[in-house]
Amino acid sequence: MRSDLISRRDLEFLLYEWLRVEELTGRERFADHSRETFDGFLDLCEDLATRYFAPHNKANDAQEPRFDGERVTIIPEVKDAVQAFGKANLVGAAMDAEVGGMQLPSVVEAAGFAWFQAANVGTAGYVFLTIGNANLLAAHGSPEQVDRFVKPMVEGRFTGTMCLSEPQAGSSLADIVTRAEPQEDGTYRLFGSKMWISGGDHELTENIVHLVLAKIPGGPAGTKGISLFVVPKYLVDADGSLGARNDVTLAGLNHKMGYRGTVNTVLNFGEGRHTPGGAAGAVGYLVGEPHRGLSYMFHMMNEARLGVGLGATALGYTGYLKSLRYARERQQGRAVTAKDPATPQIPIIEHADVKRMLLAQKSYVEGALALLLYCNRLVDLARTDPASAREHTLLLEILTGVAKSWPSQWCLEANNLAIQVHGGYGYTREYDVEQHYRDNRLNPIHEGTHGIQGMDLLGRKVIQHEGASLRLLAQRIAASVAAARALGGEPAELAEALDASWQRLVTVTTAMLSAGDPAATMANSTIYLEAFGHIVLAWIWLEQAVAAAGHDGDFYAGKRAAARYFFRYELPRTGPQLDLLAALDRTTLEMRDAWF
Amino acid sequence: MRSDLISRRDLEFLLYEWLRVEELTGRERFADHSRETFDGFLDLCEDLATRYFAPHNKANDAQEPRFDGERVTIIPEVKDAVQAFGKANLVGAAMDAEVGGMQLPSVVEAAGFAWFQAANVGTAGYVFLTIGNANLLAAHGSPEQVDRFVKPMVEGRFTGTMCLSEPQAGSSLADIVTRAEPQEDGTYRLFGSKMWISGGDHELTENIVHLVLAKIPGGPAGTKGISLFVVPKYLVDADGSLGARNDVTLAGLNHKMGYRGTVNTVLNFGEGRHTPGGAAGAVGYLVGEPHRGLSYMFHMMNEARLGVGLGATALGYTGYLKSLRYARERQQGRAVTAKDPATPQIPIIEHADVKRMLLAQKSYVEGALALLLYCNRLVDLARTDPASAREHTLLLEILTGVAKSWPSQWCLEANNLAIQVHGGYGYTREYDVEQHYRDNRLNPIHEGTHGIQGMDLLGRKVIQHEGASLRLLAQRIAASVAAARALGGEPAELAEALDASWQRLVTVTTAMLSAGDPAATMANSTIYLEAFGHIVLAWIWLEQAVAAAGHDGDFYAGKRAAARYFFRYELPRTGPQLDLLAALDRTTLEMRDAWF
Repeated sequence: MRSDLISRRDLEFLLYEWLRVEELTGRERFADHSRETFDGFLDLCEDLATRYFAPHNKANDAQEPRFDGERVTIIPEVKDAVQAFGKANLVGAAMDAEVGGMQLPSVVEAAGFAWFQAANVGTAGYVFLTIGNANLLAAHGSPEQVDRFVKPMVEGRFTGTMCLSEPQAGSSLADIVTRAEPQEDGTYRLFGSKMWISGGDHELTENIVHLVLAKIPGGPAGTKGISLFVVPKYLVDADGSLGARNDVTLAGLNHKMGYRGTVNTVLNFGEGRHTPGGAAGAVGYLVGEPHRGLSYMFHMMNEARLGVGLGATALGYTGYLKSLRYARERQQGRAVTAKDPATPQIPIIEHADVKRMLLAQKSYVEGALALLLYCNRLVDLARTDPASAREHTLLLEILTGVAKSWPSQWCLEANNLAIQVHGGYGYTREYDVEQHYRDNRLNPIHEGTHGIQGMDLLGRKVIQHEGASLRLLAQRIAASVAAARALGGEPAELAEALDASWQRLVTVTTAMLSAGDPAATMANSTIYLEAFGHIVLAWIWLEQAVAAAGHDGDFYAGKRAAARYFFRYELPRTGPQLDLLAALDRTTLEMRDAWF
Repeated sequence: MRSDLISRRDLEFLLYEWLRVEELTGRERFADHSRETFDGFLDLCEDLATRYFAPHNKANDAQEPRFDGERVTIIPEVKDAVQAFGKANLVGAAMDAEVGGMQLPSVVEAAGFAWFQAANVGTAGYVFLTIGNANLLAAHGSPEQVDRFVKPMVEGRFTGTMCLSEPQAGSSLADIVTRAEPQEDGTYRLFGSKMWISGGDHELTENIVHLVLAKIPGGPAGTKGISLFVVPKYLVDADGSLGARNDVTLAGLNHKMGYRGTVNTVLNFGEGRHTPGGAAGAVGYLVGEPHRGLSYMFHMMNEARLGVGLGATALGYTGYLKSLRYARERQQGRAVTAKDPATPQIPIIEHADVKRMLLAQKSYVEGALALLLYCNRLVDLARTDPASAREHTLLLEILTGVAKSWPSQWCLEANNLAIQVHGGYGYTREYDVEQHYRDNRLNPIHEGTHGIQGMDLLGRKVIQHEGASLRLLAQRIAASVAAARALGGEPAELAEALDASWQRLVTVTTAMLSAGDPAATMANSTIYLEAFGHIVLAWIWLEQAVAAAGHDGDFYAGKRAAARYFFRYELPRTGPQLDLLAALDRTTLEMRDAWF
């Protein structure tokens, strides 16, 4: 079977030939695992994604969740899929055995989960949010919170959400106003309204565990006064049984362009519609210490950003495979040099421009997948080797924004090209690619917009710890360049190009940061993010070219061709971007509203 | 009233301050017109678009046309709008007075029609296809065909379609198989199936006039054997009254991602469901001479390509204005240099990255509108001045592909940015911009895909008549450069940059065409189109900068800022593209299917 979701051959190349993930089984955390258990997990994910998720992808879009004022209606296939995922113990795939998890490496988990996101990103949303929630609570919650909330999520009985944004506070979390009033029994009562809550209400599982950012009255202003609370839809008794309905009310649904299968909600806390114990407010339990909520949430958010990058990648990947199949089947036109109209038409994959659109997609989606797996392996290394944990964490921190934003931009572009390869057919709902394009358009917006990622990269990650993250990345790139140079031939040529671009980026970065004009430095932080991202991806492609070097066969020839494409067509885009950044261009900064 | 559709101030700048369209009234064809009649027409268009088209734009998307096997149901507002447009005599806005037209210049018509496309591109589709059809038939049909079909279209009683594609022949029209059997009475009977027919069936008007490409048996193979026929839905008697139903059957609707308001159909000709006169086949009337159908159709297609470019521009334009308004109203975050979270949030238009996204949109949509008006003025000049007709036609021919493809790519990108400015709200169907983005995604596909435009530009337009079109464009650009140099200051700086890019383009073009390797020359024709397009738009922005020079006030400052943005952020993108083209890169050409 040749799957239209993700290429298993590519996954195996990335996991075993490039990243050598079997080596992780030498670490205590993963000692019970082996190549066989990894492959078994990938088989399971492919199978469940194909059988339970892919078949209703279109239906979940066309018949999106509805709210009649009382309850949310979702097509029944979603519940079947969420339950199949839960029963297979996949929520805990990478979690600790002691909370019921499989303790797989994150890099293997990510490889398996790409199948679900490629198959049905809407339905997958419910389970992936649950995983993020469970991981956060497992890390920062009390033992009792773990028992009451994390374990049922790992068992697939509860789902989870993250409640950050409010109508007046999206990118600016400092401005949330939801408040948490402390009670004498040590619990809190929450009052406020949360916006954009995916999976915020439904009847797919017995209960929903909301993780909510709120301010305890009297705390510091801004982000330093934000605390984190567990607020379940139904209270959970000490024995784990469900108690009263908590005062969390579904105020309405947001109707989106894509990603329609994941219900997106406005939730009101403490509206008074349900009053557990007769008192006003939604019952919440403080996670960790007061006023440290945002740092806990960033634990989840960094993971969620890798998840967004992976989702964007998976959508791009399946669109690529579908347009590849279409290009092989669709007959249209003749070679540029063939003039006789009586000759038969040829498959469009023979046209150079169609090959260009396929090669571009291949370079975007395989490059993005490689980057995501690389980052997830850093999570594993940081977690299992105390000696190098700091180094891996610092490297992961500078790459996370790229791993979120780059696939969100370029795998969306891949979907754009997938439509174009299909021509008019691709614009119809008969084919899958238009939905992938609509679904993927969310990714540059949520979990920190594209612009926020740029400000975070240039304003924080590049300069943190006196540039330690940037230096670590420079070392990795230098090592790749050295390995490629040692091979000679085309890898060495690509290495020279990468080295030149990277050195230029470092020079420009230094100049920007030392200009003494923060507003001008930050004015083009999005352009910086984009140039930085393309150079990182060139590095990832050089790595793949090195891993493919010396191997015969079409698969490796394809990797080499995609690397070549990326260096010839994509990396040069960064030249004018770096010129602009070096000039500390003030065009946008000086634009006055009256001039628009 | 500040409209969110198109900026009237900008239209007036482009028409009167830059293109000086009043001068056209000195020509005989337009002698009855004046600045007052032009303004009156713009007023009328703005008014009708605002009252009849804009209000149901969302409804026409959410409740797209349906087909129950018998008839097509369309929301009633569409009929009201189509009839209001017809009653105002707008179908004939630029047509000859003798067929009932207003004989306005095309440039003024285009300026007015942008309002309708910005207001509701789905409903506007019906009337714009009718105009294209009527223009073609007025130019190439017999006097009898003009009386029976053109005049009722001008009166708003009939609508028109263009029936080119077939399921197996989209980009490759040479491969159509619909056949037209000659009858003894001089008419033809058509048999075949046509795909992607916009406005192919409905009950908005009394009758539908299909213009159909078909092959007369025994004719030459390929495009040289294609003839053009009028095939009405209902036959029309000599006195203009409607006769029998013709044998044109609606086989089904295509359901699209966007542009849903224009019903898109599969039509079967000669299926035998209706047999006028008892004989099989759909009754068709030959237009002009046999086997010349494609050249007639190109008359319509070139006009249609400008129409597509204008539609893409209008969607980009309204998205820009809506995101501009949103950015002024939405409060979020603080200045990069403001650290106190207790200060109030600021409107997002004050953030440099938001200004960048607005300025990019402004440069795309105002640039595209300027190019479209420029091209439409060339239509007027070619039509009214025999001495310079050839020159204006040759120039128009090399610009038409850019005027179609550039807005289709970059005003779609404008819509992408309009969503991004709105954040999560922009991704919901509560706001307009997600629909504009979906609607606009059609434009790089229909009326010649993006790739087809590239092949046409490099393979035909650039080389035609020994490069005469390219030379004419070079002269225009040189004249603009000279005018800007004479001004000194910033216009002179921009002129140097344009001149350098243009000279480089010419050098690269010459090298590509003289390489003696057609497959390699054409392999990157899409990249060529994109580089060429960006350089043409830089010229259009230089022209606007020159027209704005020396004028005080915010409007002119905005034009200068947008020109500056285009030269600093956009034109440099062409550098790496031209490098790639100069290298005659074979990466895509050499890609083998087995490597994907």
